[in-house]
Amino acid sequence: MEKEKLVKDITSRDVDFAQWYTDVVKEAELCDYSTVKGCLIYQPNGYAIWENIKNNLDKRFKETGVENVYLPVLIPESLLQKEKDHVEGFAPEVAWVTKGGNEDLEENLCIRPTSETLFCDHWSKTVKSYRDLPKLYNQWCSVLRWEKTTRPFLRSREFLWQEGHTLHASAEEAEERTKTMLQTYYDFVTEDLAIPLICGRKTESEKFAGAKDTYTIEAMMHDGKALQSGTSHFFGDGFASAFNIKFLNKNNELEVPNETSWGLSTRIIGAIIMVHGDDSGLVLPPRIAPTQTMIIPIAQHKEGVTEKAEKILDELKNVGIRAKIDLSDKTPGWKFSEQEILGIPTRIEIGPKDIEAGQVIVVRRDNREKIIVSIDKIASELPKILESIQKDMYNRAYEFMKSHIYIAKDKDEMIDIFQEKNGFVKAMWCGKKECEEEIKSFTGGASSRCIPFDEEQISDKCVCCGKKAKHMVYWGKSY
Amino acid sequence: MEKEKLVKDITSRDVDFAQWYTDVVKEAELCDYSTVKGCLIYQPNGYAIWENIKNNLDKRFKETGVENVYLPVLIPESLLQKEKDHVEGFAPEVAWVTKGGNEDLEENLCIRPTSETLFCDHWSKTVKSYRDLPKLYNQWCSVLRWEKTTRPFLRSREFLWQEGHTLHASAEEAEERTKTMLQTYYDFVTEDLAIPLICGRKTESEKFAGAKDTYTIEAMMHDGKALQSGTSHFFGDGFASAFNIKFLNKNNELEVPNETSWGLSTRIIGAIIMVHGDDSGLVLPPRIAPTQTMIIPIAQHKEGVTEKAEKILDELKNVGIRAKIDLSDKTPGWKFSEQEILGIPTRIEIGPKDIEAGQVIVVRRDNREKIIVSIDKIASELPKILESIQKDMYNRAYEFMKSHIYIAKDKDEMIDIFQEKNGFVKAMWCGKKECEEEIKSFTGGASSRCIPFDEEQISDKCVCCGKKAKHMVYWGKSY
Repeated sequence: MEKEKLVKDITSRDVDFAQWYTDVVKEAELCDYSTVKGCLIYQPNGYAIWENIKNNLDKRFKETGVENVYLPVLIPESLLQKEKDHVEGFAPEVAWVTKGGNEDLEENLCIRPTSETLFCDHWSKTVKSYRDLPKLYNQWCSVLRWEKTTRPFLRSREFLWQEGHTLHASAEEAEERTKTMLQTYYDFVTEDLAIPLICGRKTESEKFAGAKDTYTIEAMMHDGKALQSGTSHFFGDGFASAFNIKFLNKNNELEVPNETSWGLSTRIIGAIIMVHGDDSGLVLPPRIAPTQTMIIPIAQHKEGVTEKAEKILDELKNVGIRAKIDLSDKTPGWKFSEQEILGIPTRIEIGPKDIEAGQVIVVRRDNREKIIVSIDKIASELPKILESIQKDMYNRAYEFMKSHIYIAKDKDEMIDIFQEKNGFVKAMWCGKKECEEEIKSFTGGASSRCIPFDEEQISDKCVCCGKKAKHMVYWGKSY
Repeated sequence: MEKEKLVKDITSRDVDFAQWYTDVVKEAELCDYSTVKGCLIYQPNGYAIWENIKNNLDKRFKETGVENVYLPVLIPESLLQKEKDHVEGFAPEVAWVTKGGNEDLEENLCIRPTSETLFCDHWSKTVKSYRDLPKLYNQWCSVLRWEKTTRPFLRSREFLWQEGHTLHASAEEAEERTKTMLQTYYDFVTEDLAIPLICGRKTESEKFAGAKDTYTIEAMMHDGKALQSGTSHFFGDGFASAFNIKFLNKNNELEVPNETSWGLSTRIIGAIIMVHGDDSGLVLPPRIAPTQTMIIPIAQHKEGVTEKAEKILDELKNVGIRAKIDLSDKTPGWKFSEQEILGIPTRIEIGPKDIEAGQVIVVRRDNREKIIVSIDKIASELPKILESIQKDMYNRAYEFMKSHIYIAKDKDEMIDIFQEKNGFVKAMWCGKKECEEEIKSFTGGASSRCIPFDEEQISDKCVCCGKKAKHMVYWGKSY
């Protein structure tokens, strides 16, 4: 009954996926709405996931030579306007500071929606020679975009992210960096978050404002919709020219450098929820879970139970497992239910009978399997169980994605699929913006997600206009 | 000559301390001015110090039960105005967002100068019962205060900090938390930053806007001035009442909880520079130094030198030392000079003759001592050398501070000291604001730094008015 008390507040994900999502965020206390419209409060449970994402991803960045910096939260209007495409893309959705203290400002300042302009401005003053290159910078910060609608993690006015910005002597080196960072995202999301991905290049109309090429990683949520989960942009020398960045090359000639930027945000927490979660709540991949196991003593008032449970806690901590113990006066059933809502990958049940038998019961959150483990071996066995969970979660999500990717050879097939099924569609495209728009219209909202690196030749005709096809594209409805 | 080339750009600290400070910040590439007036760019060298500060301090916070969260960057005007003293203190120095996208906002939003109001607003909606208490929250973020003047790290419009906010069932528990966090700052700054401190309570006029009590840690810079390095505030139930936060206690009665907040900012990097730095640049305490040792091969083109140096690098990394190697084509003299400017605690010189003798030369940055170490023992010896440096740096700074603390029994003595000497003055005070103001005026700017926990009875008369003394106060000119 008590278990039900908590879980009943979560709508079944097959009944109403959107409501299920909102319920999970609320019941797991990941984030809350603030008084400021469109801005979220990241509560301890949600922020701890972001901290683990930061730590793991930051380490991967640093292994590729990236250095962290911090640039101002404010951008002068004149700076935002230097790159034409960029300002068109962002000016309509920024917040403007017009007063400082009690005085009106001479020039309005916007809260950064992204910081290409600030990095370029800094480099225009500091980069002089090829010896100063490359610059491989990244910052962890919050950005603000004046969105109309808000959904926890998926869309909000303020969100947390990292934005990497790099500057290179040659276009080749910059392009390589763009792809290195996409690969870094790919490795991180598949390995640490257990989320399978489609990746490739964005079409012209889906590119970042000011980019020559945008590469993306796209994940499939449980409702078959796509979530753009990280992007890496190659700018060529567009921004550098607009900001007049020049360097002396080895032959003492002035050249314009090439630039990249790449970002991953708290949206990815939305992907973790919607790829792995179930009707009992969150299911966190062990590598990113703030707590990897919750020890729950049964009949904890009986002699020796708490002591034994605490001893196990120490042993687990000693081998580097993020373990906790629940010694509150709630019933075991209530504690199980809480552990499930929070998505803690395993719980360890230990009661008088288990102690007598020299064992504990490990319950996996992902498939609810109960595993009996000898007390002496828990510290060596649990890491293996966690690794299995991580792998199984990836494989399960991968199978799900694979079985929800369809092929459409013509318009009618495509219409049918998007009417009857949830998922991505592989279909050929002529390369024209008009066809992308028509496809969006006749599928009820599917957009081009990416042109994969390994294009298949499904047919030689565009799925929309029937003319000669240029690319195979993944199409999907998206968040 | 090459060594001089770099170092000559640093003004001697005895000639012009302010210019010395600016030179060190610039030559060590810690931060740079941005196009946005009063906002800094934290460059990789400066930001890496802040990252280490964050990591070390965050770990200490978590050991006391603190959880990290993230609250919005924007505060509605109506929320800022709920606590009377608080709004008076901060409203004149905030930046206002008045437009979002292309529309004027219905209510102006300020960029957070500090977030008491947001935390209280959140708690007013989420805290209901004694079971919800205590709340021990912290966030790492940037804040903005519309300052007129700017000095790198010491004063800028935007700065990075952490702000902790806690909510408690009783005033006693909140007061204890205020002191626990002061102690956490004290331990961190003295142990990890090797900076000795004076600590105590702020006088009424130096308190935080809205606080019942403000506790502070105060460090003495090399010019004898004080730098307020971290503060911890006890609010009583003032904020909670203003925000209508109530909880049901164990007897099912409604009570108003008590609150604290505490913060430490990037100012502390200014303290590291001004306490430890010398005429050759920065001197970083080993525990916080992003790079703890720089290996500099001598005659690196000669056979076997680079290989041996790289082998040492691996060995040092394996024992957890943050080691780097400089294999650039600059001369050793140039490299030495760079290592000194950057304040890297040690360098390891290794050349053909050293290899022949089976040794390396370790040079300490703090006192320039050269230590010959057997190559086989470098991985076990260097940690000890770094620990000695850490201790010696603290002791040196402690002796400096001790020898620059004076006692004044009357006004004339106080005037003389502040005219002839640099440092702090211990003197008795009657408790009146008027005397504090008069002291500031006749000393040329010395303010009360704190009333220490261990007050000495220097005399029974106020150093200013001669009436009955209430407290012993540390006085000093400050940043």
